[in-house]
Amino acid sequence: MGLLIVGSVALDSVETPFDKIEDALGGSATYISLAASYFTAPIHLIGVVGDDFSKEYIELLENHGIDLTGLQIIEGGKTFRWGGKYHYDLNMRDTLFTELGVFETFDPQIPEKERNDRFVLLGNIHPSLQLNVLSQVNDNAFTVCDTMNLWIETAREELDEVVKQVNVLIINDSEARLMTNESNLIIAARKIMEMGPKYLIIKKGEHGALLFGEDQVFSAPAYPLEHIFDPTGAGDSFAGGFMGYLHNTGDLSFENIKRAVIYGSAVASFCVGKFSVKGLEDLDMLQIKDRFREFKKLALFNEGD
Amino acid sequence: MGLLIVGSVALDSVETPFDKIEDALGGSATYISLAASYFTAPIHLIGVVGDDFSKEYIELLENHGIDLTGLQIIEGGKTFRWGGKYHYDLNMRDTLFTELGVFETFDPQIPEKERNDRFVLLGNIHPSLQLNVLSQVNDNAFTVCDTMNLWIETAREELDEVVKQVNVLIINDSEARLMTNESNLIIAARKIMEMGPKYLIIKKGEHGALLFGEDQVFSAPAYPLEHIFDPTGAGDSFAGGFMGYLHNTGDLSFENIKRAVIYGSAVASFCVGKFSVKGLEDLDMLQIKDRFREFKKLALFNEGD
Repeated sequence: MGLLIVGSVALDSVETPFDKIEDALGGSATYISLAASYFTAPIHLIGVVGDDFSKEYIELLENHGIDLTGLQIIEGGKTFRWGGKYHYDLNMRDTLFTELGVFETFDPQIPEKERNDRFVLLGNIHPSLQLNVLSQVNDNAFTVCDTMNLWIETAREELDEVVKQVNVLIINDSEARLMTNESNLIIAARKIMEMGPKYLIIKKGEHGALLFGEDQVFSAPAYPLEHIFDPTGAGDSFAGGFMGYLHNTGDLSFENIKRAVIYGSAVASFCVGKFSVKGLEDLDMLQIKDRFREFKKLALFNEGD
Repeated sequence: MGLLIVGSVALDSVETPFDKIEDALGGSATYISLAASYFTAPIHLIGVVGDDFSKEYIELLENHGIDLTGLQIIEGGKTFRWGGKYHYDLNMRDTLFTELGVFETFDPQIPEKERNDRFVLLGNIHPSLQLNVLSQVNDNAFTVCDTMNLWIETAREELDEVVKQVNVLIINDSEARLMTNESNLIIAARKIMEMGPKYLIIKKGEHGALLFGEDQVFSAPAYPLEHIFDPTGAGDSFAGGFMGYLHNTGDLSFENIKRAVIYGSAVASFCVGKFSVKGLEDLDMLQIKDRFREFKKLALFNEGD
């Protein structure tokens, strides 16, 4: 059975201090699927685009073995477009425009044969769409969800219901603080865990990530990157690598989930090293495993005598 | 031969959302020496106080085996006093007052027999005082220095000379950025390493610490603390635990310096868990080793099959 990925497929116009691109392939489901494609198959992408979505992008996704049966292509519709500009400090960005297009009326339909997929990753879309998907999939599926500050602020009730239902919530540190109105990240994590998920991952950008399980915490280091060319999709690549590894191994022990966090971090570190999706186009498992070992070396210490 | 510690000995008035204290024992040399006292002996503290410095504090330090031969007590002088108030977010604090007192004319004199100490820790004092100490100690001593944003902004030339001369510089992330005018911490670290020190430690508070050596990086996790009662002295306790462990083991390999970073982090995690120096008064090596193992568990992951 496959890995089901639901999220946005978009055309991104991005400007950083280093480069600029228009109508590039983007969206959460895109980054997630590309990242996951290095670990596992089959990947079922559920999303929506307009007929302005180029064949070239379809081919790029299909060449990565991503099954697009669930990608709705709306005749005469416009693909979701996002424009953003990063500051010199790449942690800061301005959203220049958001044109929802066909995404505004997106009604995710999970094809019959994919409703039994045991691994479901809900990319960052409106929580009511995430709930809609959860209602269509197998009750025993291992479900992971990403979200963002916008939904924490504007769709809190639906988001709380999602968090209650999923197995893993992935958010970043500022979102965890916003969600709990708590500045101490460890207390914030405890409060979120009390809302329902079995595991919580808090991404901290240049400071790595924290994984919380029942009475267990794992601190993943960040890969020391001197040059970040484009942070777009870093969180989605993390989620894709994380879930791709779990789907491939089928092992849901805490030990293996820790490894999945490192694999997610490894893929994200490749993603941000190039512009747009380019960092995810030509990877291979050898490179990813090498980086996994670099993460290990980074964090390793022994007790001594 | 002993561990030489130079820094401030002060009377602190501190207010946090949880407690308030006046004229408590404080100062960088105090926190450093107490932290180091759990690891090694003898510890030679070099500092200055007025005759208003209470006998009780002298006894507390001596009970921790700290040699105060090098602590000048100035008749009729006033001990350095610092007052600070922490916000609800403990990362923010206001300095309410700074009364230098006898510290204004502090002229560190290293007693003859301690000039051959092979481990020297320069607490956060004016870089010209740090240079003064460096000129008095053995050229082959292993020297570690702490500093702060004030000296980066007001005594840059002297500070650069200190950084050039010492073996290890310990600073926090915002100081590393300020020092290099560089937002990427990895580039900032490289630039600082180019200034001369063999090792660089960047403390990141709740995000742990980074240790940089020649072509090597180590990422230390932070202990997941739900309750921080008083951040005062956290950085100094880190430096004290770090240097105390190195002095005790005498092993300056990168592997052992990594362990020292974890021991420093462990002691700092005890320091902030109680008010003022209370977290450093009644520790024992068993507790510290237990916490070391918790750090190890926090960061440990394996490659799997």
